[in-house]
Amino acid sequence: MVRGRISRLSVRDVRFPTSLGGHGADAMHTDPDYSAAYVVIETDAEDGIKGCGITFTLGKGTEVVVCAVNALAHHVLNKDLKDIVGDFRGFYRQLTSDGQLRWIGPEKGVVHLATAAVLNAVWDLWAKQEGKPVWKLLVDMDPRMLVSCIDFRYITDVLTEEDALEILQKGQIGKKEREKQMLAQGYPAYTTSCAWLGYSDDTLKQLCAQALKDGWTSQRSQFPRARLFLFHLSALLSLQATSFPHCSSALLPSDSRLCRFKVKVGADLQDDMRRCQIIRDMIGPEKTLMMDANQRWDVPEAVEWMSKLAKFKPLWIEEPTSPDDILGHATISKCHNRVIFKQLLQAKALQFLQIDSCRLGSVNENLSVLLMAKKFEIPVCPHAGGVGLCELVQHLIIFDYISVSASLENRVCEYVDHLHEHFKYPVMIQRASYMPPKDPGYSTEMKEESVKKHQYPDGEVWKKLLPAQEN
Amino acid sequence: MVRGRISRLSVRDVRFPTSLGGHGADAMHTDPDYSAAYVVIETDAEDGIKGCGITFTLGKGTEVVVCAVNALAHHVLNKDLKDIVGDFRGFYRQLTSDGQLRWIGPEKGVVHLATAAVLNAVWDLWAKQEGKPVWKLLVDMDPRMLVSCIDFRYITDVLTEEDALEILQKGQIGKKEREKQMLAQGYPAYTTSCAWLGYSDDTLKQLCAQALKDGWTSQRSQFPRARLFLFHLSALLSLQATSFPHCSSALLPSDSRLCRFKVKVGADLQDDMRRCQIIRDMIGPEKTLMMDANQRWDVPEAVEWMSKLAKFKPLWIEEPTSPDDILGHATISKCHNRVIFKQLLQAKALQFLQIDSCRLGSVNENLSVLLMAKKFEIPVCPHAGGVGLCELVQHLIIFDYISVSASLENRVCEYVDHLHEHFKYPVMIQRASYMPPKDPGYSTEMKEESVKKHQYPDGEVWKKLLPAQEN
Repeated sequence: MVRGRISRLSVRDVRFPTSLGGHGADAMHTDPDYSAAYVVIETDAEDGIKGCGITFTLGKGTEVVVCAVNALAHHVLNKDLKDIVGDFRGFYRQLTSDGQLRWIGPEKGVVHLATAAVLNAVWDLWAKQEGKPVWKLLVDMDPRMLVSCIDFRYITDVLTEEDALEILQKGQIGKKEREKQMLAQGYPAYTTSCAWLGYSDDTLKQLCAQALKDGWTSQRSQFPRARLFLFHLSALLSLQATSFPHCSSALLPSDSRLCRFKVKVGADLQDDMRRCQIIRDMIGPEKTLMMDANQRWDVPEAVEWMSKLAKFKPLWIEEPTSPDDILGHATISKCHNRVIFKQLLQAKALQFLQIDSCRLGSVNENLSVLLMAKKFEIPVCPHAGGVGLCELVQHLIIFDYISVSASLENRVCEYVDHLHEHFKYPVMIQRASYMPPKDPGYSTEMKEESVKKHQYPDGEVWKKLLPAQEN
Repeated sequence: MVRGRISRLSVRDVRFPTSLGGHGADAMHTDPDYSAAYVVIETDAEDGIKGCGITFTLGKGTEVVVCAVNALAHHVLNKDLKDIVGDFRGFYRQLTSDGQLRWIGPEKGVVHLATAAVLNAVWDLWAKQEGKPVWKLLVDMDPRMLVSCIDFRYITDVLTEEDALEILQKGQIGKKEREKQMLAQGYPAYTTSCAWLGYSDDTLKQLCAQALKDGWTSQRSQFPRARLFLFHLSALLSLQATSFPHCSSALLPSDSRLCRFKVKVGADLQDDMRRCQIIRDMIGPEKTLMMDANQRWDVPEAVEWMSKLAKFKPLWIEEPTSPDDILGHATISKCHNRVIFKQLLQAKALQFLQIDSCRLGSVNENLSVLLMAKKFEIPVCPHAGGVGLCELVQHLIIFDYISVSASLENRVCEYVDHLHEHFKYPVMIQRASYMPPKDPGYSTEMKEESVKKHQYPDGEVWKKLLPAQEN
């Protein structure tokens, strides 16, 4: 049973100096320091349980998100957790529709990232008090209660409360079997650990060779840092080639375990062609190659560029242009809220949908997107990586399979092997699959030691680095 | 000639306690304290000229925007103004595409508001150094130089650099005459000073009666604060009824000076019907009534609600749903960047376009939107009000008439009679028109005394108010 009144909220700026090694670099984000605004909420209950929430950022600007979390704090403090989860839709709306704060969003950018961090902490607290991981809390929750967590504002033209209830009720059929299956086999993953533009050709070749040699069938801990695209996604054999006009639409072999590679493109065409050639030469003609332009292009530029890259037969092209461009979009997109996702679905502008556990408004808003995707029968392939995105999103996608989509066809969850060592309950990958977490909560809790060390600008790591960077 | 290196950037949180009087309240923003993040930049030049920039906010959250301005400051400091304006597109892109900060936007919400404040200050500085108001700086600028201020990323599928140049070159024809006309007659305005939901029926009736009695043909200073919709928009007689399916499409009389009223709706249908009835009874069947729902509705709700309000014959319905909803939109919209405007134009989803001097990325991004509107032949009717929005946007719309649209047909600029007394160069309204400002700069400079008094939380005003609000 939920208990306690929220008595304290703290938020810290935690940054990892990933830019030093070129990790995470893409066409638009050339020097990211993977970072998080890290929220901890405490209650006056005697159990001492804390809720931890994060949102992912790229270094500079984390202090702005921290400032926004503090601006939201008064909506959380002194509330009974029982009242929050008893009217979670109302609470969500209170956070996102504050009469004054709404102006600096609404439901996008800094304020929405801050909202996600706060709500992620609330979900972690709730699940911990119930003694369940978040995915299990969701799977066991009555459909009516689930629906009461969702704010349907701006999406009722494609998904009403009744639609949502109907989908969830249908999802009850076969739920137990799917839960067993998840516990035994996990949810299929692909990884993007080192498609980064920051790596040299030699590093790329070396990591690619190693990935091909190793495959990805054993546990994460046996692997070195920063590896390239690790795959063997047995559950994913029938992913279709997309309808992007200049991409290959060759049928993919469906009878073998595939290696899947994702490469960042978009900064320089000649460079992209050389890198794609290296990879395609190494992986051969049959293995799957995905591309991600990270919003680099205009629409005509995307068409021209991809017509040149088409010969390397990409499966999909991710974020070819502005995330605000519904009409210019193609294939697959990360979005900032449910309204943008709704339109991409309405406009039939995407063939795969990428949810994000920290850019959308936590579990609540992701639930609405999972349900809309189900209604439109678009497979969800979550965005992950960063700091903690894998830890969080696994709960959502496992719930999606057990209670909503009931299908693994064309579905796969991104995995990046970075920074998991800073989490108290890190993801567990086995046989290229996310194994369902068993610890109570949302897997959001970081090790206190890591947080202290990486706090910006006063943690040990930054105290050493900053003077060096200034010289 | 531009001169000097930016040697200092300061930013302050300035708030006016407008919520105390119910001013500015609408369906989504029930208790706004009109506020600004106020930026001042200084150079090492001996002239002592400072550039002032603002972005408009609603109270809480201003501190988050202030924090974002500080995060952007390093892009401005120690730059030569000559280098900034010499490659203004490059500088704009540097601000909006910072490899780390971009993640917490991009080009939307807090970061974009902060970008606007910084760039507004740069434009003010530039114009002051040239000894011209911003509108005149723009009007006199060579089309190639103008185009070099615009970032075309994400919009080249509807507007290329060549398109823009062609439009601006055509705009040279008759420019001198239009400039003379503006200086003599000004740009037509309408006002929304008190359509606010925060006012009682009695206040509404009283203000409405007074507005009808007074008309709006004399100078602003002769009018009391917080007046209702003041009109007599002689230049605007042929505005068409919109295509919103349930709105009146009766032809408007085109041979008389019209009173125009805008009413905020969307919080409570019965309440809206009563208020609209009061206004329509007072103004009679011929005068124009506009409605603004401030993003309150879902799409089906907007259709149902407006079918009930249709009998009051609104001219347009503003922001019926989420500003992110391209496909669900109707008629008129304020947007957060050029990419959203582009799509609304592509989707033929609006009949009037509202630019905003502080939500978009300053003059630079507004230029791109004005040019796209010209290409699609959609009339621009700027959003104004708030703190300083009128002061800024008048420069853009006067430039638009002289150098881009060359038309006043169906065009009008919003005016709200709030808080101008805090500005050093306040707007001048004559015969219901914005008279072109003559002082050098962007009219963004506030009176130092006002800033000091209203700084949050340490200014005199807040030192008195805050303890009272806590009790």
